[in-house]
Amino acid sequence: MSAGKLAAQVGHAVHDAVMGCPKAKLESWEDDGSMIVVLQADSEAELKELQSAATRLKLQSFDVQDEGLTEVEDETFTVLAIGPDASNRVDMVTGTLKLYADAAAAARTEAAELRERLAAAEAELATLRAKADL
Amino acid sequence: MSAGKLAAQVGHAVHDAVMGCPKAKLESWEDDGSMIVVLQADSEAELKELQSAATRLKLQSFDVQDEGLTEVEDETFTVLAIGPDASNRVDMVTGTLKLYADAAAAARTEAAELRERLAAAEAELATLRAKADL
Repeated sequence: MSAGKLAAQVGHAVHDAVMGCPKAKLESWEDDGSMIVVLQADSEAELKELQSAATRLKLQSFDVQDEGLTEVEDETFTVLAIGPDASNRVDMVTGTLKLYADAAAAARTEAAELRERLAAAEAELATLRAKADL
Repeated sequence: MSAGKLAAQVGHAVHDAVMGCPKAKLESWEDDGSMIVVLQADSEAELKELQSAATRLKLQSFDVQDEGLTEVEDETFTVLAIGPDASNRVDMVTGTLKLYADAAAAARTEAAELRERLAAAEAELATLRAKADL
């Protein structure tokens, strides 16, 4: 999922969460700075487990299903919103998750490593070519 | 801005836009599928121009200012929400913008090119090393 696509899916999750939230709870979240934290789940199965855990704790949650028109397969569960609620309650479900893994950072790290290996290979090539010319 | 950070900022923009939208306009947007499109602006100056253009057309807009606690500088204008409104009206402001540029895709393309160049260099190295051993 591209960064823009993720952002749109999270936007839908926020829309649902805000519209579905009791007024007092929504205002308390807003008074607290309207915190939004985007965390990483690695599969649809993990998203479903998180949703069950939220339900058991009586935390509101909303799943976003992508329509599959563009990047992902038909009716894929892409994003789960939990809350708004007190962060210590949300943390009971999400506390062990990591921040959303940035694919760009990973790809940039890989590119940097490849660039280094290429420079080393090209330096050795230059040496060998010079020897071959002797 | 990482993908997760962008998603959170867009989430704030959607929260503001939904809360600030007149009920009839919000319901009409929801009936139409609650479309959210994440587009690319290249500078804070461009975001400000887009916001002025939206205001001239009487389109509601909301700017998200990052608090600068984590990734970006203090009070940076990161995201502008325009609408909800009829898409032909929003398009009058945003019609020439491209979809949000995916930094991960660009970095992956670069890595793929580097991988190819490295393979070519290593193949030539193997040939030259074999010759040197003769």
